Amino acid sequence: MYYKKYNLPGSDAMPIVELHLLKGYEDADKTRLGEALTDAVRLVVPATPEAITVMIHERSPAQYMRGRIPRNPAPALPDPALIVRGYLDAMEARDLDAARTFLGRGFVMHFPGAPAMHDLQQLIDWSAPRYREVRKTYEAAEAFQGAAEAATVYMRGTLSGVWLDGTAFHAIRFIDRFEVAGGKIIKQEVWNDMAEVRA
Amino acid sequence: MYYKKYNLPGSDAMPIVELHLLKGYEDADKTRLGEALTDAVRLVVPATPEAITVMIHERSPAQYMRGRIPRNPAPALPDPALIVRGYLDAMEARDLDAARTFLGRGFVMHFPGAPAMHDLQQLIDWSAPRYREVRKTYEAAEAFQGAAEAATVYMRGTLSGVWLDGTAFHAIRFIDRFEVAGGKIIKQEVWNDMAEVRA
Amino acid sequence: MYYKKYNLPGSDAMPIVELHLLKGYEDADKTRLGEALTDAVRLVVPATPEAITVMIHERSPAQYMRGRIPRNPAPALPDPALIVRGYLDAMEARDLDAARTFLGRGFVMHFPGAPAMHDLQQLIDWSAPRYREVRKTYEAAEAFQGAAEAATVYMRGTLSGVWLDGTAFHAIRFIDRFEVAGGKIIKQEVWNDMAEVRA
Amino acid sequence: MYYKKYNLPGSDAMPIVELHLLKGYEDADKTRLGEALTDAVRLVVPATPEAITVMIHERSPAQYMRGRIPRNPAPALPDPALIVRGYLDAMEARDLDAARTFLGRGFVMHFPGAPAMHDLQQLIDWSAPRYREVRKTYEAAEAFQGAAEAATVYMRGTLSGVWLDGTAFHAIRFIDRFEVAGGKIIKQEVWNDMAEVRA
Amino acid sequence: MYYKKYNLPGSDAMPIVELHLLKGYEDADKTRLGEALTDAVRLVVPATPEAITVMIHERSPAQYMRGRIPRNPAPALPDPALIVRGYLDAMEARDLDAARTFLGRGFVMHFPGAPAMHDLQQLIDWSAPRYREVRKTYEAAEAFQGAAEAATVYMRGTLSGVWLDGTAFHAIRFIDRFEVAGGKIIKQEVWNDMAEVRA
Amino acid sequence: MYYKKYNLPGSDAMPIVELHLLKGYEDADKTRLGEALTDAVRLVVPATPEAITVMIHERSPAQYMRGRIPRNPAPALPDPALIVRGYLDAMEARDLDAARTFLGRGFVMHFPGAPAMHDLQQLIDWSAPRYREVRKTYEAAEAFQGAAEAATVYMRGTLSGVWLDGTAFHAIRFIDRFEVAGGKIIKQEVWNDMAEVRA
Repeated sequence: MYYKKYNLPGSDAMPIVELHLLKGYEDADKTRLGEALTDAVRLVVPATPEAITVMIHERSPAQYMRGRIPRNPAPALPDPALIVRGYLDAMEARDLDAARTFLGRGFVMHFPGAPAMHDLQQLIDWSAPRYREVRKTYEAAEAFQGAAEAATVYMRGTLSGVWLDGTAFHAIRFIDRFEVAGGKIIKQEVWNDMAEVRA
Repeated sequence: MYYKKYNLPGSDAMPIVELHLLKGYEDADKTRLGEALTDAVRLVVPATPEAITVMIHERSPAQYMRGRIPRNPAPALPDPALIVRGYLDAMEARDLDAARTFLGRGFVMHFPGAPAMHDLQQLIDWSAPRYREVRKTYEAAEAFQGAAEAATVYMRGTLSGVWLDGTAFHAIRFIDRFEVAGGKIIKQEVWNDMAEVRA
Repeated sequence: MYYKKYNLPGSDAMPIVELHLLKGYEDADKTRLGEALTDAVRLVVPATPEAITVMIHERSPAQYMRGRIPRNPAPALPDPALIVRGYLDAMEARDLDAARTFLGRGFVMHFPGAPAMHDLQQLIDWSAPRYREVRKTYEAAEAFQGAAEAATVYMRGTLSGVWLDGTAFHAIRFIDRFEVAGGKIIKQEVWNDMAEVRA
Repeated sequence: MYYKKYNLPGSDAMPIVELHLLKGYEDADKTRLGEALTDAVRLVVPATPEAITVMIHERSPAQYMRGRIPRNPAPALPDPALIVRGYLDAMEARDLDAARTFLGRGFVMHFPGAPAMHDLQQLIDWSAPRYREVRKTYEAAEAFQGAAEAATVYMRGTLSGVWLDGTAFHAIRFIDRFEVAGGKIIKQEVWNDMAEVRA
Repeated sequence: MYYKKYNLPGSDAMPIVELHLLKGYEDADKTRLGEALTDAVRLVVPATPEAITVMIHERSPAQYMRGRIPRNPAPALPDPALIVRGYLDAMEARDLDAARTFLGRGFVMHFPGAPAMHDLQQLIDWSAPRYREVRKTYEAAEAFQGAAEAATVYMRGTLSGVWLDGTAFHAIRFIDRFEVAGGKIIKQEVWNDMAEVRA
Repeated sequence: MYYKKYNLPGSDAMPIVELHLLKGYEDADKTRLGEALTDAVRLVVPATPEAITVMIHERSPAQYMRGRIPRNPAPALPDPALIVRGYLDAMEARDLDAARTFLGRGFVMHFPGAPAMHDLQQLIDWSAPRYREVRKTYEAAEAFQGAAEAATVYMRGTLSGVWLDGTAFHAIRFIDRFEVAGGKIIKQEVWNDMAEVRA
């Protein structure tokens, strides 16, 4: 469809990906792996998703040896997008204790016009003189792994809420960037048009 | 290193990825594929990059048949991060003609506090009463392919420049989001702290 | 043995076939697949059957994804040679109802000297003034899939029976050709030496 | 198309065939292998041809060892359908010497109402009192390899020509069956409606 | 470690071995296979054991066909080093009946200064005028398969015991070489420094 | 043959080994790898050599990535059996300088009745009062890689030569064991029946 829309050259490429894994992953993990591998190929090869096949081979420890030693699987990493969403939902519910369970050591937040903050209470205190309440409407979540150590999650959409003077605001664009390592959020960066609108 | 830093559970998982491709890709394309496939696995499996092997099998058309028909490779998609960087460099040099070569049909821009814009001259006109000049210092580029049709590129860093009144600004955080389809930019979204600083 | 008999050049070729399948096929299906793949190779490569290995890899839906979507196996097609034999046995027993269960939509028959017929009763009526009874002795059945949509089955052997005048006939050569699509017979073509003998 | 026509159940099966071969085969040989392997799968798995991928891996002798001994490829067998067609064309041109080059040791012919014949001149002599000339119009050729030693080729279509009394005939159905071993025809079996028509 | 010690060139080679087997082997068998395959690669490629991965694919008989015939696995060969050790332990305990269960047809022994012997009692008789008792301290066992029919096992270490005159000896070097075929010892060759010491 | 001789159970196992390597090895290296892998399987699986296939896949550095980094092949290790033979031939020719080129750092020799020696001149001096000359007749060489760091080579056969008193000796059994690491001999251990014969 969009291949027509953007006039991509017709492609005969039909890549096949085989992944050899130790046994022990959930179907949901394998589905995430299959999706990520499919998209990895699509970054370079102009193939429609339908043209890309992913096959996962699973092996028991006795069937998988490195350095003459049979190996055991490591538990799958949780989906970083779900971790971020859990955190954001807890924050929206002002449940700081729940929100803190999603945070890793060295967690740092960067908000527009704010100093680096390390604790959620700091954030609450900092935002108090800025708006009375805020809610996020999500348009999209993007999660991926790059060369860096942590996975990256982007959440973007619009903010609505109430200014200190009681007037409402809505449809203010925002984007949040998260770094997730070992299943914990270690960094949150926030950009939005609040100042633009407020000004 | 960071595995220690963030206390990841030690992992014995040593995934191996095999990619079957039609012959005809450059070494640089294969390197990008290998990197993207490695990172796709790391999104789910807690393995260090060193524990992940990618093997690419290449085949001539006579060795690769679908539907009883030998197939030809499609040219690799250009690196979307390079396309975005080329566009941003042309914009910084105010070379609109060069910049336009990077844009696809239906191109749209979203800037803070601006209506959707479709032409680069519109952007120039819109920014004229806002600042005299601006330069970007890049901290990071992130490119990935998700389920959606286009690849996504994020560029982030800081802005420096001169306000209309001649005073300088610098170290203003920004993040740009691009969608690249068929080797052309079709969407640019911009967030930054300019209004926050200016206010 | 026949390699000696017909003086084939000695062959060192030892092809190996790997088939990747979704889990869910019966052992009998896999045996048919292995036989057909072995013979497909032998059509081109002068290898004895013993020199050809077939390995079947089976995967659960979560291990097999195309277009980012896990897939489910389709039930195996029935053996077309068994379908044809079932039909011929029902016809020999003059059990038209049973025979009709083997026929697909658009079924057509071509017999020597007969117009195209579409219904089994037509065939009975047409043959009534030609012979009193007929029985088939099978020498060989051949089933294969070509480029065309339907599988092909050949049955050949000899006819024996009784002419209208009560005299017996036997050892009349015949060959029947069937097309089987979706598990149903859609075409039957018959050649034999009846006219030659009767004349 | 026919999958719709004959109401086949929709199939998600997407089999992948890998063939490991010694290097040295022509592209045409590999295409024939790919076609035969695709069709072998289709005999059992209800997949459209487009859903079946064949990948051929080729290796040099040093990369392929059995019994501790590197191996050399055997030359491909010629396409048996081409051999049969060459023979039939030579026969139609009454070039018996050319036709004989296609025949293997122990060659035997079975024609309707004729004894087993071993020499082409026998066939000429036998047909002399039956018709003055005959030409074949081919509707289809089918070639496949079964469990038996020789490949099988079927040619079918219609005969036209001139009877001994000078009257013409045409559109007489025929089917010829050939066995081809080691690149030579070792058996020809013929069925047709000549007697039916002549009677 | 020793790679540093002996100044081996740093190696980037990371060989991967895949073994396709019929199902039915014990984990211990697969571990022995993985070790032997790892070491086979290390004989030629200067890779550390940690750089070598072995993956074992196991298939049921219906998934593994040669010559159009599904195949059954053969029971694993016992570890020849364990067989040899069992034999030596039985001999040290002077349990000739137990020791004989480890011997195959045609068993032959070659001891220093002795004729070829075929029966364990012969050995006992031959050694009687040489020493009163002997015990083996093992330093190492080495088992491998070469081109020859039988596996080879080397046991080496030191002998201690009592001469005929009642004086003790110890730390006399020895090496025993065994050939093991079909799980039975068929040859024992012994070298040691007894004569050197005794002299 | 010997499978019959030693009454091995008939085996249907037909293992297939695939080795994935970086490109750059000589055919002779690949042959050694194929032999070693074949024999590694035979140590555990009772298959005749003819039943074992080894396929070597070679890849260019751009096709082989670990830790997101394309890799380069390491040069093959020389055949340790050839190194040992070169050393022994140089020693027999009394060319100590040539012989020393085969030795690695920390080289040590253990001869019957001798202290550990580290230099070849030591050996010459030690043997001077023992025999006037000695020559080796080789019956077999065995080379393999075990878990230990170095490859092991065994040479065995018989010694002939001349005692100090001028009388000849011959057919004295010997076995030499060598450890070869990084292409250099680091240990030689010698056992023989010289004292037995001399006594």
